Amino acid sequence: MKYPNSINKTYKKTVINYKNRGMDLESMINDACSYYLENDIAIIYKKPTPIGIVEVDYKNKAVIKKAYFKEPSTLDYNGIYKGKYVEFDAKECHSKTSFPIKNIHEHQLKHLRRIINHGGICFLVISMNDNYYLFKGEDLLEFLAKEERKSIPFKVIDTKGYKLDYNYSTGIDYIKGIDIAYKELINFENTKVEN
Amino acid sequence: MKYPNSINKTYKKTVINYKNRGMDLESMINDACSYYLENDIAIIYKKPTPIGIVEVDYKNKAVIKKAYFKEPSTLDYNGIYKGKYVEFDAKECHSKTSFPIKNIHEHQLKHLRRIINHGGICFLVISMNDNYYLFKGEDLLEFLAKEERKSIPFKVIDTKGYKLDYNYSTGIDYIKGIDIAYKELINFENTKVEN
Repeated sequence: MKYPNSINKTYKKTVINYKNRGMDLESMINDACSYYLENDIAIIYKKPTPIGIVEVDYKNKAVIKKAYFKEPSTLDYNGIYKGKYVEFDAKECHSKTSFPIKNIHEHQLKHLRRIINHGGICFLVISMNDNYYLFKGEDLLEFLAKEERKSIPFKVIDTKGYKLDYNYSTGIDYIKGIDIAYKELINFENTKVEN
Repeated sequence: MKYPNSINKTYKKTVINYKNRGMDLESMINDACSYYLENDIAIIYKKPTPIGIVEVDYKNKAVIKKAYFKEPSTLDYNGIYKGKYVEFDAKECHSKTSFPIKNIHEHQLKHLRRIINHGGICFLVISMNDNYYLFKGEDLLEFLAKEERKSIPFKVIDTKGYKLDYNYSTGIDYIKGIDIAYKELINFENTKVEN
């Protein structure tokens, strides 16, 4: 987490800076990934940001001199939990009433559908109205198939989504969310993990 | 595949350009990934190269002005096949007699061990002596545990490894290799993973 200009941490915590909330959600998920890794619970990493490299100065320790950000075609995080393939994305929602579908790129939606068809666990972590939700890819696809709306009402997210706990040491505990949201998939397998 | 200076393709194919072989192996694997994706066989992507961004010009369409390549701590490719988590790396070996262990970063080795312990399919695709091999992570760890040598003799790779087919339309067919190398894991869903 970033505390610019040496702002006191305790004070900073009480100030909700909406401009940086996207950053914060990612940090809180990254904290969880580190926690799971250190405690051998799951191996889930954020994929590096896709970048198109235009110019590299090989004479100078291969410093990249020109590059640009590319649009992601997959979701940001993926890895393995209890033998299962897991992939998800973190989405910050500033509206209090509904989550705009356009927050999810067309390519990402196609990818999400594929992952589910191949038996993977695929979802969004949505930050909305000061809560964090695990919103299953299956529920997202069902909503898109039935509704013509371009946004998901908060009520749907709050009802269908699984509320995630946050605390300072573990970050946003999305694995606990997986255990509940996908309990049949997780429990019925004989994928015995021994460490 | 790259054919610089408009060299005739047929001619070029007979010339082994060792300098570009790393690139070629990657291209041939990327071709396979595209083929599997298009035919809905597996969803496996090359992760973007990890890059540390130093300077971005936000005034100019967010062009990256300074960045550097970071050392990877995971393997290059990951995804899902028949519901299973798959991760691997492509390694070009120029020596005809042995594969140097130092080709695999310390972090990558640690990561490979973790993935296997969590029930994932994890291996190397090694290009050596004009052949392509799927070399299982389990066999790599077994070799490292028993031997103090800093390289794996070609004989071990040729014996323990699974030879992979290459053809122009499918690239290096590593999924066929997975079907053979991990047939128990792939065929019996409820198989316990033992290392």
